[in-house]
Amino acid sequence: MKVSTVDLRSDTVTRPTPAMREAMARAEVGDDVYGEDPTVNELERLAAERLGKEQALFVPSGTMGNLICVLAHCGRGDEMILGADAHIFYYEQGGAAALGGVHPRTLANRPDGTLDLDEVEAAIRADNPHYPVSRLLALENTHNRCGGQVLEPAYMDAAAELAHAHGMRLHVDGARIWNAAVALGVPVSRLLRGADSVSACLSKGLAAPVGSVVAGDGEFIRRARRLRKAVGGGMRQAGVVAAAGIVALNEMVERLAEDHANASLLAEGLAALDGVSIDPAAVRTNLVYFDLDGAVPEAAEMAARLAERGVLVSPTGARGLRAVTHCDVDAAQVRRAVAAVAEVMVQSR
Amino acid sequence: MKVSTVDLRSDTVTRPTPAMREAMARAEVGDDVYGEDPTVNELERLAAERLGKEQALFVPSGTMGNLICVLAHCGRGDEMILGADAHIFYYEQGGAAALGGVHPRTLANRPDGTLDLDEVEAAIRADNPHYPVSRLLALENTHNRCGGQVLEPAYMDAAAELAHAHGMRLHVDGARIWNAAVALGVPVSRLLRGADSVSACLSKGLAAPVGSVVAGDGEFIRRARRLRKAVGGGMRQAGVVAAAGIVALNEMVERLAEDHANASLLAEGLAALDGVSIDPAAVRTNLVYFDLDGAVPEAAEMAARLAERGVLVSPTGARGLRAVTHCDVDAAQVRRAVAAVAEVMVQSR
Amino acid sequence: MKVSTVDLRSDTVTRPTPAMREAMARAEVGDDVYGEDPTVNELERLAAERLGKEQALFVPSGTMGNLICVLAHCGRGDEMILGADAHIFYYEQGGAAALGGVHPRTLANRPDGTLDLDEVEAAIRADNPHYPVSRLLALENTHNRCGGQVLEPAYMDAAAELAHAHGMRLHVDGARIWNAAVALGVPVSRLLRGADSVSACLSKGLAAPVGSVVAGDGEFIRRARRLRKAVGGGMRQAGVVAAAGIVALNEMVERLAEDHANASLLAEGLAALDGVSIDPAAVRTNLVYFDLDGAVPEAAEMAARLAERGVLVSPTGARGLRAVTHCDVDAAQVRRAVAAVAEVMVQSR
Amino acid sequence: MKVSTVDLRSDTVTRPTPAMREAMARAEVGDDVYGEDPTVNELERLAAERLGKEQALFVPSGTMGNLICVLAHCGRGDEMILGADAHIFYYEQGGAAALGGVHPRTLANRPDGTLDLDEVEAAIRADNPHYPVSRLLALENTHNRCGGQVLEPAYMDAAAELAHAHGMRLHVDGARIWNAAVALGVPVSRLLRGADSVSACLSKGLAAPVGSVVAGDGEFIRRARRLRKAVGGGMRQAGVVAAAGIVALNEMVERLAEDHANASLLAEGLAALDGVSIDPAAVRTNLVYFDLDGAVPEAAEMAARLAERGVLVSPTGARGLRAVTHCDVDAAQVRRAVAAVAEVMVQSR
Repeated sequence: MKVSTVDLRSDTVTRPTPAMREAMARAEVGDDVYGEDPTVNELERLAAERLGKEQALFVPSGTMGNLICVLAHCGRGDEMILGADAHIFYYEQGGAAALGGVHPRTLANRPDGTLDLDEVEAAIRADNPHYPVSRLLALENTHNRCGGQVLEPAYMDAAAELAHAHGMRLHVDGARIWNAAVALGVPVSRLLRGADSVSACLSKGLAAPVGSVVAGDGEFIRRARRLRKAVGGGMRQAGVVAAAGIVALNEMVERLAEDHANASLLAEGLAALDGVSIDPAAVRTNLVYFDLDGAVPEAAEMAARLAERGVLVSPTGARGLRAVTHCDVDAAQVRRAVAAVAEVMVQSR
Repeated sequence: MKVSTVDLRSDTVTRPTPAMREAMARAEVGDDVYGEDPTVNELERLAAERLGKEQALFVPSGTMGNLICVLAHCGRGDEMILGADAHIFYYEQGGAAALGGVHPRTLANRPDGTLDLDEVEAAIRADNPHYPVSRLLALENTHNRCGGQVLEPAYMDAAAELAHAHGMRLHVDGARIWNAAVALGVPVSRLLRGADSVSACLSKGLAAPVGSVVAGDGEFIRRARRLRKAVGGGMRQAGVVAAAGIVALNEMVERLAEDHANASLLAEGLAALDGVSIDPAAVRTNLVYFDLDGAVPEAAEMAARLAERGVLVSPTGARGLRAVTHCDVDAAQVRRAVAAVAEVMVQSR
Repeated sequence: MKVSTVDLRSDTVTRPTPAMREAMARAEVGDDVYGEDPTVNELERLAAERLGKEQALFVPSGTMGNLICVLAHCGRGDEMILGADAHIFYYEQGGAAALGGVHPRTLANRPDGTLDLDEVEAAIRADNPHYPVSRLLALENTHNRCGGQVLEPAYMDAAAELAHAHGMRLHVDGARIWNAAVALGVPVSRLLRGADSVSACLSKGLAAPVGSVVAGDGEFIRRARRLRKAVGGGMRQAGVVAAAGIVALNEMVERLAEDHANASLLAEGLAALDGVSIDPAAVRTNLVYFDLDGAVPEAAEMAARLAERGVLVSPTGARGLRAVTHCDVDAAQVRRAVAAVAEVMVQSR
Repeated sequence: MKVSTVDLRSDTVTRPTPAMREAMARAEVGDDVYGEDPTVNELERLAAERLGKEQALFVPSGTMGNLICVLAHCGRGDEMILGADAHIFYYEQGGAAALGGVHPRTLANRPDGTLDLDEVEAAIRADNPHYPVSRLLALENTHNRCGGQVLEPAYMDAAAELAHAHGMRLHVDGARIWNAAVALGVPVSRLLRGADSVSACLSKGLAAPVGSVVAGDGEFIRRARRLRKAVGGGMRQAGVVAAAGIVALNEMVERLAEDHANASLLAEGLAALDGVSIDPAAVRTNLVYFDLDGAVPEAAEMAARLAERGVLVSPTGARGLRAVTHCDVDAAQVRRAVAAVAEVMVQSR
């Protein structure tokens, strides 16, 4: 019997749920470039409400969401302050600079995913022709490269206050903002109270096949809508995918707690193994980063051997690996993954 | 009884067919950013075959298709020669310049949608630091603003030859390339034989809800894929929409002949009306542009009065209007549209 | 005895006058990036006064002057309307698009160098996400590729009024604005009354070795100064060259009338030759464009044969040539040039 | 009697020497855009020779030199690795990103101005559509914000080797490369042996009023020359300033040793004062950074009080100051500066 694969590479691999398939098949649609797709309009209304912003806009990806938010805030040559480990800086091909002429000013992320706000303040540029204009502060919540760390409401508020005090805007890369809200037990709108914009994914943990939403005030969304058109994100009968996004928002948010529990289960299982280095207490959402000691195979080889056993994880460096829990993985599969790691360890000695 | 609307504003309003809905509901999907969505892979294989190119890439819109093709050909500051009425120049927010630093050099389109190739040759820049480098020639087939005109294979070949003789590339904005192929009775690959890239829509006449494909050689598609990621066009389980694209390619191309017949029917009906100026012989595909004489209402008012009668058309200027046939409009509805125009005319006297 | 060369290729070949050499040698200087160069400050004060604007800024070239003016007016993706024969579009490597993401919308120049203002108005974009935002109208006075044509005050005013009525700005590429003012017998400030910015060369006819000035209101110049720094136009002890610019403004403007007279002399001389096509009445400033008939050598060969005779002109096409008068060419030399053309003609029969 | 000011704010305040004034007044010039200025040509030949590269190009500023070098190496969206304290990143308005779409990847500079080459290697991107392409490594020698630190030949070689091993290029911001060469006692060409490009200032310590040179191989300079034209750095009779650059290269390099001696004198004088924190051993060239203890005035106030005493320095932060020695400051003036600091200290207690 073929055993199903346990795919822990990323929560981006989640497949649409039956309810999503059904909603997509039945979606009432229209031409969204004309503003006439009722399903898109409903998704945007719902997303704005959940995110606590005036308006929202449906986009085909989180990368596009971040790109158009940054470009809606920053003109040619403006500076954006963000973490050196920010997804926007690290994993989005530098699009904001490449396509929009935005200058990224990176600060080291702290292990908890935050930036030191004193360092942020020190990095804000004076008015001087040698300098770009500091226009935007960008945070990421949860923070992917920092291990799914959750930025607390008080921190988010303080960051917004600092940005605004200097005439800057705050953008939140909220690819996994729903995970943050669930982990903290607060509404997502609370986390974003001070933010001027957010990009939040409907795919990933929420399992919609395609799409993200960006949100902000009406004037911001007007600019974002123009930018979406410019980069080619204006889709026609987008309701066929937006329908899945509505299901995602209505049915898939609360259950992220299960993914977090499974991530903890995974972390504890791994921590019990010789040769694996991980602090289970640091796993707060669905991202599990762990390191292999020198005595065991390197990450790439570990990943390859796990794959032979039907367990997929992502190497992140010579000795680092990432495993991500999501709705297509249950506790039993997590235990299988731990067992597979243990087995490879044993065979490597 | 409420009479259904006859929506002739654009073929972008086409809704997915039942077969598409079914295919979407059943689509096998995976994470396309990892190259693992079998439905996307099948669509790209099929599109490459039909377009006669090595590889193809699925993108969420025709605007993105054109943008990434232009940027894949042109570096910062390179020049693109294209028609002043080209969709790329006229209706895509100038994205190639705005985001990619590509310099557009426009030449007047002739009424048949072509550029005079002698003018193109004269516009190609010499090697001189005062000039940008002429890198790309872009044509549009069928040509929207020129009334759905079809560019013939011999012309396309000559344009490609000219471009290549000067070390330039030829891109074809083939948003409605399927209409051109059907109107000419040649395979679409024949039309694109000399082209280095094409962007072809699966929405519009083919009725897929979302998406276009770009095609070219393998190295070109590698660059295009990177650019798609940069602008945020990398979608996750994109198979849910690609599935409709496969149906579009397999079932919706040949039937475009019906749209063309309906467009002729519409043009002839309009030509018979006093106060309408149109040459039915010039209507070769599904786009019907017509003008109102001075004695009748202006275009905006005509459109408003037609809308009251359940007929939607697009004003294109003070006296110009556009009506587009597509799979959601049949001959009876076209006759209704003509009757509605006649009725407004009569009441306006 | 070696006869001196008559260099009619361009007025850019003018060498600094003895008075300029003297002023440069004695110039009091400081660090202009700190705003401490008294000679630069004096030049900028003087230029602002002459151009009739609040403030002016010294830049190393006319191309930089135009570039930073366009970028100071236009953000990423804004549209600039200008002539297809505009120097900004034709001869500046497309820098505004390449470096600043500004979308050029070209209209045909009329033979007198103007744009049809009705066409300009028709080209201004509606508010629509398919379109860029029309932000800038750019004119050129005198107009180089149109043969040194002079745009009249009334036209300049009407263009400014049109631009402002649509919330746009008017920039004037005034590389040879001094020639226009002298030809028209009006102060240069009169020509620029409605303009929001101008870039005016101190080199060319005014014979300064290096530099142009841009002018506009204080807020505009603040932005232009930042952009000058960004493109690397901030120079240190720039007074050494600005000193020549002051001489240029004080001593070299009125004498442009001599260049115009010499250009007329040249045009009349050429018109009298069989095989040369030129309308002397159309020569209003210092640029003389003429065409060779089919019976005589092509332009490149004519230029080569003239060069053997010590007369330098610029071919502008297969049968077109350009000759430019300036302060380093006197009437006798102009007559020598005519004689040389005649001689080549005779020998070619 | 008015005592002359001791201007230690920067070496950019240096005024042209009498020999430069003389050379400028007598310079033979031509139109450099046509390649016909013999003085510019001679400067470029001489600079290429000194810098040990095939060709060189004269530009109006160091900022332009760096900008066009970076853009000549990097296409739209390519990544440049450089120090977070690099002048290119910190003080040039982010022009490479703003205007050229180049993505800056910053690493912390070590106190000696270098980057850790292991960190550089770790920062080089894999081939992945999530990432920009790592194209350029940029170093700065001497390093301004690191206190005029000198990067040794062995380090420069190792950096070049690393870059080349990964298909990258090495650019050197050599605004003060002459200081580095003099401090190390090696030819400047030795320092640049592995570099693909350099931008070196003729102003600053060498005292030319205007200008820098960039150097590299012929193909690189061809691209740089095009970019210089695009940004508006093509100047006409530029020989008038290039003449001073020739004097700078011939007469002003060796004497930089005096500036270094004066900087040491200054550092030692300051180190002897209570309330000033500085390590004289770390002062290797002409830049002297020092900090004020908490018991004495803040930097801005110190600078203001020193200015009242005719001594100008630059505050660099709340407690930091910078003083720069150069050819317009002699040892006696340095002693006056130390005395002035001491005096302010005493009066502040």
